[in-house]
Amino acid sequence: MTKPYVIGIDIGGTNTSLGLVDRQGNILQHAKLRTGDYEKLEDYIAAMEAEIVKFGQHAGSDNINGIGVGAPNGNYYTGEIVDAANLRWKGAIPMADMMSKTLGHKVTLTNDANATAVGEMMYGAAKGMRDFLVVTLGTGVGSGFVANGQVIYGYTGFAGELGHVTVEHNGRLCGCGKRGCMERYCSATGIVITANEWLEQRTESSLLRDAKGPMTAKYIHEAADAGDELAIEIFEYTGMILGQALANAVAITSPQAIILFGGLAKSGELLFRPVRKYMEENLLNVFRGTVAILPSSLPEADAAILGASALAW
Amino acid sequence: MTKPYVIGIDIGGTNTSLGLVDRQGNILQHAKLRTGDYEKLEDYIAAMEAEIVKFGQHAGSDNINGIGVGAPNGNYYTGEIVDAANLRWKGAIPMADMMSKTLGHKVTLTNDANATAVGEMMYGAAKGMRDFLVVTLGTGVGSGFVANGQVIYGYTGFAGELGHVTVEHNGRLCGCGKRGCMERYCSATGIVITANEWLEQRTESSLLRDAKGPMTAKYIHEAADAGDELAIEIFEYTGMILGQALANAVAITSPQAIILFGGLAKSGELLFRPVRKYMEENLLNVFRGTVAILPSSLPEADAAILGASALAW
Repeated sequence: MTKPYVIGIDIGGTNTSLGLVDRQGNILQHAKLRTGDYEKLEDYIAAMEAEIVKFGQHAGSDNINGIGVGAPNGNYYTGEIVDAANLRWKGAIPMADMMSKTLGHKVTLTNDANATAVGEMMYGAAKGMRDFLVVTLGTGVGSGFVANGQVIYGYTGFAGELGHVTVEHNGRLCGCGKRGCMERYCSATGIVITANEWLEQRTESSLLRDAKGPMTAKYIHEAADAGDELAIEIFEYTGMILGQALANAVAITSPQAIILFGGLAKSGELLFRPVRKYMEENLLNVFRGTVAILPSSLPEADAAILGASALAW
Repeated sequence: MTKPYVIGIDIGGTNTSLGLVDRQGNILQHAKLRTGDYEKLEDYIAAMEAEIVKFGQHAGSDNINGIGVGAPNGNYYTGEIVDAANLRWKGAIPMADMMSKTLGHKVTLTNDANATAVGEMMYGAAKGMRDFLVVTLGTGVGSGFVANGQVIYGYTGFAGELGHVTVEHNGRLCGCGKRGCMERYCSATGIVITANEWLEQRTESSLLRDAKGPMTAKYIHEAADAGDELAIEIFEYTGMILGQALANAVAITSPQAIILFGGLAKSGELLFRPVRKYMEENLLNVFRGTVAILPSSLPEADAAILGASALAW
């Protein structure tokens, strides 16, 4: 019989968040580590252990069903983290095995977007859905696809890299080494690149020209909210690229909903309206009107922990 | 307990093929109808009934486990055929229900490409695979995606329309009403459009200029085999578009193999070489070298029957 609690851990480049979670998705205990403080992986895992011992004291160690981990470039099959750009530990790290050995619980690991998809399915906007996808719009773009009620991990364990579909041949150079990847246009980073390019190429006045310091997605959002036409047009363009890429994904998996998550998704209708419009325009007739574009309904600060924890049920 | 035989039926615009199939994929009895001969759907189903009665006499009617049907625009969930361009019966036809009522067996229906995917998984090149896709390159382009060992039907039941991903914005007008769909470039029809366009735009000599009658994919294939440079370049271009589209599909589902099926796939390395090259060039590093591009290993004349029959197990 499954035990009443799980632990969710979200490994990020800056912070690692840990939570003790019950079956209803309540986070009973929180903890946080600064990921970058640990040069040696063993020290990092030892620091996690200290927090998990405290969780065990709260819940009773025997009542913990397992640990779920969301991590950049996490592989569900091997439990490895492979060449994560934002982590100090390079190569293929057997994170799930190492954690399991030290922490004495079963550890299930996947990438952060797949973990979010599981979280949305258990606790969020995708409750009860068997076919949907989650797109995380942050510094980069991640995605998690669910079909027939199961996450698609694929043959490699790395499926769901919608951020790296090509949207423009010979387009912007991506951190992955390819050109024209969707995440160079539709992430918080991508929208800033668009703004800077357009400000240089064009002459119209815009609030964006008054930005103090480096351009940010948040600043573009604020300018658009204040009615700045260039900023609104930048969102229209960003939503167009995303909507076209989503239409191609719909042709493959025909989801009931696409859940947009992360910093840029907080722009609301500024982004959602053009995404819907250009997705619909590019859909085959049998798919038109069948796909809802939804915001995440996971409480934002806890979404990553909840997503990761859901893996451990 | 499952019974020892199933019936596979492939509904095509010209012919309908029926077969009595055992668990090993042997087709013990064949039958064929000319689909276009039947103005009334009831007459068509009655003609099927006559053939199936004969199968029942051969196998013993009680030994037939069910009927699987592959049909253009077939919907797995509803058993309907919806607005199939090549069939006389328009609108949404409740084909599975009507057949089941008349024929007295359980009828499972899906589109022809999904049926082929099931056939490859049970009897063909994808035996033992849990994550793969089949792309059918005929007059149009169809596809069937399998993830976690299950066909992806999606929320609508119509998932797997890779032929209608957009490969060129404002590109060639497709029969579906959209522009730039992959099937307008990578089908037997698409490669002929490319040849005719290039012959008009360019001046170099080519065997293709000597074609008697309308251009065909077969003629382009023969010219390329004879060393004609323009024909070879047309295959390179066709393979490039297909390879790029497949790379985007790999980013989503990470298949172990992509199985190319149908008329144009018989061009062999003329097509397979550029498909592999451009797919690999457009893959994220974690997917490079992980995806096999394979020809179908189903016996060609029987593939559609086998695929359809596999649904009935």
